[in-house]
Amino acid sequence: MEGRQPAGGKAGSRTSGSAKASARGGMDFARLDSFFNPSSLALVGATDRSRWSWSAFHNWRTYSEGPCYLVHPRHQKVHGEPAFPSLSAIGESVDIAYVMVPTDQVLPVMEEAASIGIRNAVILTAGFGETGPEGAALEAKLVELAEAEGMLFLGPNGNGFVNAARGRTPYGLPIAPPLRRGPVGIVLQSGGLASVVLGMAQARGVGTTMVVSTGNEAMVGATDVIGYLAAQEETRAIAVFLESIRQPEHFKEVATAALEAGKAIVALKAGRSAAGSRAALAHTGAVAGDAAVVQAVLDSLDVVRVTSLEDLLTTAGLLGYQPRRLGRRLAVVAVSGGACDILADRASDEGLELPEYPPATLAALEELLPPYSNPHNPLDVTGYVVVDANISARSLEAVVASPAGHFDEVLYQTTIPQAAPPDPAPLMARYAALAELVARSPLPVLLQSSGPAGGGFADEVLDRFGFFVLDGIEHGMSALGSAVRWQERREALLSRPRPAPAPRLEPPPGATGTFGEARARALLAAHGVPVVPTVIVHNVGEALSAARTFGGPVALKVAADTLLHKSDLGGVELDLRTEEEIEEAAERLLAIAETHHVGDEGLQVAPMRRGGVELLASVRCDPAWGPILVVGLGGVWVEVLGETSLLPLPSGRVEIEDALRSLRGYQLLEGGRGRPGVDMEALIDSLTGIARLGEGLGDALDTLEVNPLWAGPSSCEALDALVVWAR
Amino acid sequence: MEGRQPAGGKAGSRTSGSAKASARGGMDFARLDSFFNPSSLALVGATDRSRWSWSAFHNWRTYSEGPCYLVHPRHQKVHGEPAFPSLSAIGESVDIAYVMVPTDQVLPVMEEAASIGIRNAVILTAGFGETGPEGAALEAKLVELAEAEGMLFLGPNGNGFVNAARGRTPYGLPIAPPLRRGPVGIVLQSGGLASVVLGMAQARGVGTTMVVSTGNEAMVGATDVIGYLAAQEETRAIAVFLESIRQPEHFKEVATAALEAGKAIVALKAGRSAAGSRAALAHTGAVAGDAAVVQAVLDSLDVVRVTSLEDLLTTAGLLGYQPRRLGRRLAVVAVSGGACDILADRASDEGLELPEYPPATLAALEELLPPYSNPHNPLDVTGYVVVDANISARSLEAVVASPAGHFDEVLYQTTIPQAAPPDPAPLMARYAALAELVARSPLPVLLQSSGPAGGGFADEVLDRFGFFVLDGIEHGMSALGSAVRWQERREALLSRPRPAPAPRLEPPPGATGTFGEARARALLAAHGVPVVPTVIVHNVGEALSAARTFGGPVALKVAADTLLHKSDLGGVELDLRTEEEIEEAAERLLAIAETHHVGDEGLQVAPMRRGGVELLASVRCDPAWGPILVVGLGGVWVEVLGETSLLPLPSGRVEIEDALRSLRGYQLLEGGRGRPGVDMEALIDSLTGIARLGEGLGDALDTLEVNPLWAGPSSCEALDALVVWAR
Repeated sequence: MEGRQPAGGKAGSRTSGSAKASARGGMDFARLDSFFNPSSLALVGATDRSRWSWSAFHNWRTYSEGPCYLVHPRHQKVHGEPAFPSLSAIGESVDIAYVMVPTDQVLPVMEEAASIGIRNAVILTAGFGETGPEGAALEAKLVELAEAEGMLFLGPNGNGFVNAARGRTPYGLPIAPPLRRGPVGIVLQSGGLASVVLGMAQARGVGTTMVVSTGNEAMVGATDVIGYLAAQEETRAIAVFLESIRQPEHFKEVATAALEAGKAIVALKAGRSAAGSRAALAHTGAVAGDAAVVQAVLDSLDVVRVTSLEDLLTTAGLLGYQPRRLGRRLAVVAVSGGACDILADRASDEGLELPEYPPATLAALEELLPPYSNPHNPLDVTGYVVVDANISARSLEAVVASPAGHFDEVLYQTTIPQAAPPDPAPLMARYAALAELVARSPLPVLLQSSGPAGGGFADEVLDRFGFFVLDGIEHGMSALGSAVRWQERREALLSRPRPAPAPRLEPPPGATGTFGEARARALLAAHGVPVVPTVIVHNVGEALSAARTFGGPVALKVAADTLLHKSDLGGVELDLRTEEEIEEAAERLLAIAETHHVGDEGLQVAPMRRGGVELLASVRCDPAWGPILVVGLGGVWVEVLGETSLLPLPSGRVEIEDALRSLRGYQLLEGGRGRPGVDMEALIDSLTGIARLGEGLGDALDTLEVNPLWAGPSSCEALDALVVWAR
Repeated sequence: MEGRQPAGGKAGSRTSGSAKASARGGMDFARLDSFFNPSSLALVGATDRSRWSWSAFHNWRTYSEGPCYLVHPRHQKVHGEPAFPSLSAIGESVDIAYVMVPTDQVLPVMEEAASIGIRNAVILTAGFGETGPEGAALEAKLVELAEAEGMLFLGPNGNGFVNAARGRTPYGLPIAPPLRRGPVGIVLQSGGLASVVLGMAQARGVGTTMVVSTGNEAMVGATDVIGYLAAQEETRAIAVFLESIRQPEHFKEVATAALEAGKAIVALKAGRSAAGSRAALAHTGAVAGDAAVVQAVLDSLDVVRVTSLEDLLTTAGLLGYQPRRLGRRLAVVAVSGGACDILADRASDEGLELPEYPPATLAALEELLPPYSNPHNPLDVTGYVVVDANISARSLEAVVASPAGHFDEVLYQTTIPQAAPPDPAPLMARYAALAELVARSPLPVLLQSSGPAGGGFADEVLDRFGFFVLDGIEHGMSALGSAVRWQERREALLSRPRPAPAPRLEPPPGATGTFGEARARALLAAHGVPVVPTVIVHNVGEALSAARTFGGPVALKVAADTLLHKSDLGGVELDLRTEEEIEEAAERLLAIAETHHVGDEGLQVAPMRRGGVELLASVRCDPAWGPILVVGLGGVWVEVLGETSLLPLPSGRVEIEDALRSLRGYQLLEGGRGRPGVDMEALIDSLTGIARLGEGLGDALDTLEVNPLWAGPSSCEALDALVVWAR
């Protein structure tokens, strides 16, 4: 049984309910490590009638060592073994209680557990926070008890965990054999999905360290488990299924720790399709919804995003099993021309290259292959493999001997059969030779199958040689693309200094509701963001005189701070060139201002800016994730493209430039085909200023939106702006 | 043995080498049906040393009935059976010869086969057309012989076929059991891939009628086989892997026949990533490459396009097994909240809806489910399913009883285990009840598993109850989305009259090389496509006078027919408003014209068109697929979006409007946010005129490009144009 743990650990940095637990100690690595490595189990509520009970019992007997005590108040025998009437009756120390009693009996059971020094529990029982306020109150009582007694529990409404690395399985759903050990840690917020994912991992030959179902996360959240896995030795990659991220700041910390430790987090985040939940007072809400914010945060932390369970497992498998550096220059040794075609298309999708084989390699391949073959990358070893089964391996041997630096890795297609051949020895010998070749290859060798990678005889081969096999072309290439991008981004992130936070700013006087154009522009100007020069006028004569001062075409707008969508009301006139045009426009706009009872605020006159590109630039302060810079092409572009880049703040100039580059419209900024490019330095200056202003205002701000931000050939100016305050 | 077939069949409509075979009869349905249903097999070149030979022999013995004769010139015993020294020595009739002799012996073997009345062959041997001119000549001799003798052969360089529906397997790669019969016909141009696909189909529980590997397609092409499967009774859906489509016109015919027969063709077409192979003299080449043309043709024929083998099989499986009409309103009964989340995201990706359960259904579900559950669509039956295994089925029962018209189908998650439980009877009883419920359900019920859908015990269940199970959420939802879109599009296509072909037009005099703006505009105008009024001028005074005639801002361009990229040379000046601007621009352009030695052609003056939307509209005459209309937003939009819609011609107004609607920029045409919409009728008139002109010119044309085509609020005009002739 575990020893008592000292209080301590990372405290104070968390925002959810479990922050309390953390502040009180016990959520550090050692505490979780003792939680996840119990040597004895008590199944409380064990009964022959429950499949949960049967599964939990069977799992422990099959995959774990140490005693499993069955507890039921009335049954004397459960699952064919003697049962105890209560936890107290066991009379031996118990590392973890697996609680499956009815909802109203969970608290008494936990109290009894506490009284006899049981410090860990999995609570399978449902009917708590997920059902409403009453259940939430009961759940809070459990947490209160646990915190008071120094206990830690997983759940409620969670199936527990499978510690495959060490053989500890307090887990209440069936685990189909073989339970494969491997480098991938898996965390899921959905209980039922845990078994699905475990089954899929086994079918794909992906071995795990731990599979943890966090349920309601009353004490231990997915983020805590990710943090544990990032620090745990056996885990080399982490696969997570997330419905919501409950501890944003803590999540950022553990994701950063994982990145520094070289352990990729691969995430399938539910809710991609959820409509942004914000009212669209500012345009920003419509083009940068909640799902987009979470995606931007995950991107900024180099969390690999996938959208299917297949990609979740194959990608985490590749990142966990393959210790070497991967890159974009891929060599392929395939088993058919058709496979080569599909691979080439998928490689292109993933931004991977298939450089031609260098002359020496081509010569070696021509020597090997039948006379009618025409070797190139991707290499089809041709149907001749049926005559000479070693031709694939010999081709691989030739390819890995390519001059250093020509390729980053080799993908080698080989499908290990699920049914053993009558005499498996020759096949085993071929795999042994392959394992030896892979081990001494100067290039990383990735194996890729066309059928299920695991199962039956294939499991034997995987076990014996420690192979990891990418499951099919589709998911295999997704995994490779993701792995390469993860590594590239990791290197970039770790090589850059972390951007310094912006200094905290006091909101200006009257910072409630919204600021229309005039006050928003003033705020920008006061913080060094260039804005277009503007004169307020109250009649046609003043308008004409202001226009004369600017020279060239002008824009006229109704100045009212309360009219947020001036152009929808016809309150904007652009590109006025002649005195007649200006007069006519001013008269019309003054009439509109009267109609909307804002006549006394007058009109704005500003010079037209032409020949540049209009952008949308905002800072949105997300309640969970803090300030986010949103940038995209503006005006009609944002309507048609609906495309923006989001950057969690603080971010530096390099990140801002990357965000611009990631836009489809970036080439408009670069110029070309007779159009001049924009002043990129001035644009990044403006964006940096907007970002630091928004970040500095912090949670006083809802949204600061500059739309359009005009980027010209030699300057950048805010042409219109809007502030929505948080209060 | 088959009877002799009468000559005849569809003739004259084909363009490839096999057209000859067709014209000579024998490629009609009955001829292919006899080819694909041999009752006796001769393996020529059979030897214990060849895995092909062993596989072909073993396959026939395992899956087929009727004699299998082994032929080898020297071996007296092969695969443990007596062998014949030659085909002639067999002395019995042989329906099909499977030829695996060395390349130089194939022709003599075929001659011998012909001499003894063998009318069908699979030629496995490689070394023919795929190797170069010498091999191609040898291949041509085989075709010549076969045509002269009324023979038909598959290959060379192809593995043969597996007729699972009737149990005929002249096929030279291993077939892992069980060979499942089912409704999906599979055609592949890649030999090695056939076995991969067959294995994947079996793992997914997808049963087949036929799997055909067409190899070099010397006589029988993939298109012929698709046509056969479209007419064959057992086949309900057709899955094809295509490297190239060798018979475009014939392909259109068989795809149309399949569509009319209600059999979906699902295609994985290689070469998506291939760069467009056309020189980019016209802009069209860069935005509508060869791969895009093929995709447009497949779309116009309602061929379902997929990009992975997984989607190929799962989609064809769904379309083959599910006879009922599917639609966008999906009900889901799932096994975990996490699965519901992933399903909801994927449903949204696919354009499917998850309408809430109607009140009566909700009431029934609340009755069934535990008190803490909160039923909604997608339905999580909660972990309670572990306690009451029937809760899922009872929920399904409640859902299928929803009022008619509320849902189009139900997706029901159930994973059939691959390992049989110790006592399979209760589980079998549950599946029997499920089968009964599915059969009497007023709504189509789609089953979806989380693991591999077939294999082991699952195969038994699939066989007994005729279930088809979608393999996983990712590929299952892709399949459902594709199936729904296929059905919708099929109904639209079959309900519309087929557009009439445009009348053939004589190319204008001098139709070689290129026509620059002036001649291209004249051609358009002569065929009723509105063009912007333009005056040719030769000095500043004429320019000013022309501008005065038009009134308002004008555009000035260098008029030279040979300068195709005028704007890149600075030869275009837009939006000239004042006399000074016009004078200055005219002087500059006249100087440019002098520099490029085209001064005598003068300048064009045209009124500026503003406030509308610029489009790109072209007709590209594809060598294989004929005329294609290309339409997209023009100007800077085509550079940034790189997006066009392609429509094979002839197409009607409805198709042209659909093509416009499919553009991301369609909302620009619609107007909104203060911008007026364009005159859609005038735009479609212009596009129809351009399409019919391009189509009428036929293969005299390479590309007719109108860029920009200006669509205004009340008219539509070609502002600039270019013609590239085919010669």
